[in-house]
Amino acid sequence: MKVVVLRLGHRGERDQRVTTHVCLTARAFGAEGVYLTTKDEDVKRNLEDVVKRWGGSFWVRETDNWKKVIKKWKEGGGVVCHLTMYGQDMEDVINKIKGRDVLFVVGAEKVPPEIYKISDYNVAIGHQPHSEISALAVALYMLMPDALKKRYPDARIEVLPSERGKKVVRK
Amino acid sequence: MKVVVLRLGHRGERDQRVTTHVCLTARAFGAEGVYLTTKDEDVKRNLEDVVKRWGGSFWVRETDNWKKVIKKWKEGGGVVCHLTMYGQDMEDVINKIKGRDVLFVVGAEKVPPEIYKISDYNVAIGHQPHSEISALAVALYMLMPDALKKRYPDARIEVLPSERGKKVVRK
Repeated sequence: MKVVVLRLGHRGERDQRVTTHVCLTARAFGAEGVYLTTKDEDVKRNLEDVVKRWGGSFWVRETDNWKKVIKKWKEGGGVVCHLTMYGQDMEDVINKIKGRDVLFVVGAEKVPPEIYKISDYNVAIGHQPHSEISALAVALYMLMPDALKKRYPDARIEVLPSERGKKVVRK
Repeated sequence: MKVVVLRLGHRGERDQRVTTHVCLTARAFGAEGVYLTTKDEDVKRNLEDVVKRWGGSFWVRETDNWKKVIKKWKEGGGVVCHLTMYGQDMEDVINKIKGRDVLFVVGAEKVPPEIYKISDYNVAIGHQPHSEISALAVALYMLMPDALKKRYPDARIEVLPSERGKKVVRK
């Protein structure tokens, strides 16, 4: 099982922080990498820096052809889930996608309507307006709750869970 | 059981979108309201507009004294949980807070160190860097998974879950 995220429609500075949160969330909740449809060196550098310190092999790649990313994913036998408040409940979809390679598509405010058609599933984490960051976090958590416990042998810095204050180990 | 969020340290425009996502997430995942420590009319107006259309009685209030908010919460018998990657695992805390009134504290990048001391619990949703939006979403989801299904009788607009496209009812 492999999980990757496709982030659509990030529009420069306004979305930069939100896209950074999308990428960090993807990494922390067990995805292998994120495709961005907009070139954004700051987001990329930020995540590379996190990986250098916190470990693992999470990647951020730009693509100028998101349809090709989806097509290839499907050709490889993977399933495409578009996260949208208009979709079916995740609870009704989760057993169909568990164990398969999943590409989660998360949009910024507007997404091309086509995405509703070419995705295998349009999936909602609740039907109220909230945040693509929350939707991704909860979708990944529902699919892979243990990913949160993953440890990185190559990390330079690691947190020691603590009742008070900050305890870290630097290696 | 009542859940409220205290958002610390939002610094103007840079954090505005993230704070808006924090508030929308709080609402969608079952919190009653959010205290902001920074005056931000845009965030407030945005949420009021969402409540007007999507229903319910979610509120956003400014406070210039977050210590007082925490003190009052404790005096009322509620428990204060600071969400931080340095904290204990949510799994180890959840049974202690379930059913009680919970104030979740979420910071922007830096929080006053004092918050680690005066919170009843410092709670982590994983120990990797990610996003206060994700942390809040997953913490609320773990505590109240059914809140996502809540419907609002006074909503002017409601989503009908759908396999393809967008279906909404306007009332």
